[in-house]
Amino acid sequence: MYRIGVDLGGTKIAVASISENNEIIRKLSTPTEPERGNNAVAEDIARLIKQLCADDGIKPCDVSFAGIAAPGAINPETGYIERAHNLDMEHFPIVDMVKELCGIDNVKIENDANAAALGEAVAGAAKGTKYSVMITLGTGVGGGFIIDGHVFSGFNYTGGEFGHMVICAGGRPCNCGRRGCWEAYSSATALVAMTREAMEAHPESELHKVAAEQGKVSGKTAFIASRRGDAAALAVVDEYVSKLACGIVNVINLLQPDVLSIGGGISNEGDGLMIPLQKQIDREIFIHGMGPSTEIRIAKLGNDAGLIGAANL
Amino acid sequence: MYRIGVDLGGTKIAVASISENNEIIRKLSTPTEPERGNNAVAEDIARLIKQLCADDGIKPCDVSFAGIAAPGAINPETGYIERAHNLDMEHFPIVDMVKELCGIDNVKIENDANAAALGEAVAGAAKGTKYSVMITLGTGVGGGFIIDGHVFSGFNYTGGEFGHMVICAGGRPCNCGRRGCWEAYSSATALVAMTREAMEAHPESELHKVAAEQGKVSGKTAFIASRRGDAAALAVVDEYVSKLACGIVNVINLLQPDVLSIGGGISNEGDGLMIPLQKQIDREIFIHGMGPSTEIRIAKLGNDAGLIGAANL
Repeated sequence: MYRIGVDLGGTKIAVASISENNEIIRKLSTPTEPERGNNAVAEDIARLIKQLCADDGIKPCDVSFAGIAAPGAINPETGYIERAHNLDMEHFPIVDMVKELCGIDNVKIENDANAAALGEAVAGAAKGTKYSVMITLGTGVGGGFIIDGHVFSGFNYTGGEFGHMVICAGGRPCNCGRRGCWEAYSSATALVAMTREAMEAHPESELHKVAAEQGKVSGKTAFIASRRGDAAALAVVDEYVSKLACGIVNVINLLQPDVLSIGGGISNEGDGLMIPLQKQIDREIFIHGMGPSTEIRIAKLGNDAGLIGAANL
Repeated sequence: MYRIGVDLGGTKIAVASISENNEIIRKLSTPTEPERGNNAVAEDIARLIKQLCADDGIKPCDVSFAGIAAPGAINPETGYIERAHNLDMEHFPIVDMVKELCGIDNVKIENDANAAALGEAVAGAAKGTKYSVMITLGTGVGGGFIIDGHVFSGFNYTGGEFGHMVICAGGRPCNCGRRGCWEAYSSATALVAMTREAMEAHPESELHKVAAEQGKVSGKTAFIASRRGDAAALAVVDEYVSKLACGIVNVINLLQPDVLSIGGGISNEGDGLMIPLQKQIDREIFIHGMGPSTEIRIAKLGNDAGLIGAANL
């Protein structure tokens, strides 16, 4: 059984062969350059798949499964990318094109956040669980909900929009048009915005020095300055952890997955994030008197989660 | 196939025989009076079941299934009520007791909000759907999530706590210890509290007249006064609908059920609630470009939802 995972992103297309044990055998990639047009992107995916097969000594017709992870509104039933802003795609039949260009019968597609959650469920932080949620703290707050090795995304495949759960009605504006979405507080983008606000309010803060050392304000700035004891940075991290915990407790109260794993750039903070986060979650969790609650873990597979998940669709 | 549903509440025990078409054949009830002790309550359930069988001309050993809906923390796997404040029960083996007292082999138990959601899914507002959510606007905000005719409540059976999703971090205090829970804005209790606050702030308001006519302040007071054009009442209803919509849109963005049905006392407002609610939901819903979203409906089965759901566990 030879399986392929494809991770189609706004900047890069990655393609990998995946072993029975869900390890990456070989990986190839190329820039996406979506401005070339949708067909050119699909042709590049096909080219990489054929190259991968050649390198692994396999005929494309012997590929038992290829799965694609892609951003935006995806219809896994029709195989269309319905809407993906950063790929400049609308109603594009990517699955049929890849089938035809490569001669592979079994090709599926899923939203990239859902595919990453599936990757963590089959081979990462949530391996061996029945129910798991993965939250990705990046440009936005992505999420995926896995039940028994399958993505759950509701009747129209658009569920799992964890980032667009309002936790602070009337609060910070979100790209989706609502105010107070979790994403407006817990994405890396939001953390950078809150860090900039604190820098403006506190010209004396160590945040300025850290930003100068790094050459930019990033999701790391507040965490680094807080470890140096800076008061403004500590307040930013406190606020960030508090809102992150708020959203996580909401998800747990609703879904009680065995494991909720946290991925994305911010998760690289490790214990600096996880220890205060777990404390805050323990304070807020609904006490039901029925034994243990969801375990919070850092995601394990990094950027490979989507590729491994895609191969398991 | 002779099935029985039991609805064990803090004030009343109801027992009913349920037809193949999920209609109630015969119903009996008795006051719960939990202060008599746990065993007396279990014995009353058994007595009602035997009476029901006798009235229907069935031997208890020929009952093919009996399901119990009960409040609080329920373990459907062990059949224990782990914790139910208004029944004064802790770690009580209700299923085994009913099996033994009645001589019925197949008895199951589920949380009452989950059972009601299952009732609406098999025979009510969400009949024929694959995924549905039911929200009950009563003393609290109860909820249940149904997938393919089965209750989903996570790995430890305590999911579906929709009311304890924070929508307003730092906001109104909730019984669970958090602040800003959906329940603190959208339960009937919360609506009464907000109505009282408006009455205090607006001595001139029609709210006082309505309350005097009704003999009390209830979940209906603000709706009645708003229909008479009272400004303070209109503001209360606006705020209530806005927060209710906020929580519902959160649930849709996460789960995208085919149908979300609304039950409990407040749902009796009908169009007076549903028309402004749907408008607000349409304004807030995440636009995914993938066809229709969740339908919002009023629950159909009223107080029988739990009985019918219980018989379908």
